[in-house]
Amino acid sequence: MAKTPLPESYATQIRLASRPAGAPTISNFEIAQARIARPTEGEILVRTLYLSVDPSLRPRMNAVSEYAGAIGLHEVIPSSAIGVVVASGSPDFQPGDHVFGMLNWQTHATIRAAEVRRIDPSSAPLPKWLSLLGLSSFTAYIGITELARPKAGETVVVSAATGATGAAAGQIARITGARTVGIAGGPEKCRYAVDRLGYDASVDYKAPDFGARLDAACPDGIDVDYENVGGDVLKAVFARMNTCGRIVVCGLVSEYSSEDGWMPGPSLWPAVYKSLRIEGFRASRYFDRIPEFVEKALVWADAGLFVHHECITDGIANAPLAFVELLSGRHLGKAMVKV
Amino acid sequence: MAKTPLPESYATQIRLASRPAGAPTISNFEIAQARIARPTEGEILVRTLYLSVDPSLRPRMNAVSEYAGAIGLHEVIPSSAIGVVVASGSPDFQPGDHVFGMLNWQTHATIRAAEVRRIDPSSAPLPKWLSLLGLSSFTAYIGITELARPKAGETVVVSAATGATGAAAGQIARITGARTVGIAGGPEKCRYAVDRLGYDASVDYKAPDFGARLDAACPDGIDVDYENVGGDVLKAVFARMNTCGRIVVCGLVSEYSSEDGWMPGPSLWPAVYKSLRIEGFRASRYFDRIPEFVEKALVWADAGLFVHHECITDGIANAPLAFVELLSGRHLGKAMVKV
Repeated sequence: MAKTPLPESYATQIRLASRPAGAPTISNFEIAQARIARPTEGEILVRTLYLSVDPSLRPRMNAVSEYAGAIGLHEVIPSSAIGVVVASGSPDFQPGDHVFGMLNWQTHATIRAAEVRRIDPSSAPLPKWLSLLGLSSFTAYIGITELARPKAGETVVVSAATGATGAAAGQIARITGARTVGIAGGPEKCRYAVDRLGYDASVDYKAPDFGARLDAACPDGIDVDYENVGGDVLKAVFARMNTCGRIVVCGLVSEYSSEDGWMPGPSLWPAVYKSLRIEGFRASRYFDRIPEFVEKALVWADAGLFVHHECITDGIANAPLAFVELLSGRHLGKAMVKV
Repeated sequence: MAKTPLPESYATQIRLASRPAGAPTISNFEIAQARIARPTEGEILVRTLYLSVDPSLRPRMNAVSEYAGAIGLHEVIPSSAIGVVVASGSPDFQPGDHVFGMLNWQTHATIRAAEVRRIDPSSAPLPKWLSLLGLSSFTAYIGITELARPKAGETVVVSAATGATGAAAGQIARITGARTVGIAGGPEKCRYAVDRLGYDASVDYKAPDFGARLDAACPDGIDVDYENVGGDVLKAVFARMNTCGRIVVCGLVSEYSSEDGWMPGPSLWPAVYKSLRIEGFRASRYFDRIPEFVEKALVWADAGLFVHHECITDGIANAPLAFVELLSGRHLGKAMVKV
């Protein structure tokens, strides 16, 4: 390839400065500059446009994380993102092409062309490729259609119901014909779950009579639990599972910042007498099915069955704040940063 | 049908006298007589020959049991058994026919013909219909072939490896091509697991260095856990599960008599990052597949691949003692009573 000068010389990066004890703060992050590497053959240089902010970063900030590996100190924060190609060493991409990939929390990424996927901004606005069509939604798609497989009329409960993954899980379950109940924190999120995301009912886990409300919302018990939260929310749902119920464990966000460590799980005795299946999963095992998902999601969105909202923070320097606020539960919609 | 006199007038029964607190004793049972009911149309009268003694009775002796229902005070102990028809109100059975069914802990049972299954003593000796071909083995067959589905070369760990279900689970897993590791209590059972039941290795959970021994027996980690025990044994196995591992929970016998109640389960976080599936089950959902199992089991047994031993106690009056000893872990082989 021609050695044309790069349009930019330095990338801004957000790196891990220190490991949080308990809830993370913005001081756990640092901002830095790094010289942009010229793409060699088979590589492309991408300018990041929107980067994703995900709760699952939290366990990876610990010194030991078996979930996708611990982030090293002073390492760039790993993340999915969308961007535009600015220089290409690959015949498959031209400057101006839009791509999705693990670009990380930085303004520019030099990455192997084989590791990104082309996206089409004419079929959906750019932020939708991180929200509606992004990895959080794809994770929900796998959890519901591949693992939980709700039958029409079954009751599906989704915790963190208005979160990026939960919002998609609830809607996809409803598309399959299930009755959906969202668990969320506070009346505003509960209204949003029903009014904007189409849940059949929602339950506020912060209410003192949470258990009674959950009973009322699930008069026929619970057939599927799409679990994002863990802890006491999982306990309450677990106690109400029907025979042959399925619990799909996507995340345990209530436990991520606990200084007591991970909570013990529920006793497995009910799993025996009720023939329950509890399945943890990571969507990365299924990445070959992303194109299938995107195709379906666009059809559902066109039909008005599948919506997703964004909570967009401006400026890469504010990514740490967006993450801290996300974990504190203040977001509605998919958290992302416009770089 | 002809009103011929019944060959016997009174049945001897073992009933629940009181509910155990902790480990059961023989004083929790009572012996009683009951007039034998003449079979009406569609019913048969069966004389019990061998009755089964199963650990899963224990939770059903509690005041509340969601596992197949609590046994009522002074109710006959429910159990599978084999017997011979002595009077028939059904065109499908003649006196002298041998049957398998829920005859319970009593010398005679009047039962609907549709609820029993004919067995053929010429294809296997009578006790084998409770051991090799009985419900414990069938349960293992479902757990291994339907739920765990080990692949050739995978490591399958079985707890209570020499018990009635464990013995079958280990052998069936081995027939599917897996490498099998049995966990049992004490050197005698561990030798028996390898020498008589064909496990590739066995580990004594009572050894002070149990964890290190389990590591040594499973150098490639654990792909499938067929769980009969729960508690600390399950904890040790869970920590060694490989990515995409499956934990099939058949029973939790170490917790059945605990006065502390059920143990909490393992944290579900490893289930997420390792994509583990934890599945409890009861074989009763699959009873339509018993004939398929019996056919296969007889073929495996003929080929010398599938053996099962019996621990036979004489006399129905000794059934409570057999049960108490079974729970204390003193048995080798399938516990049953020759009536």
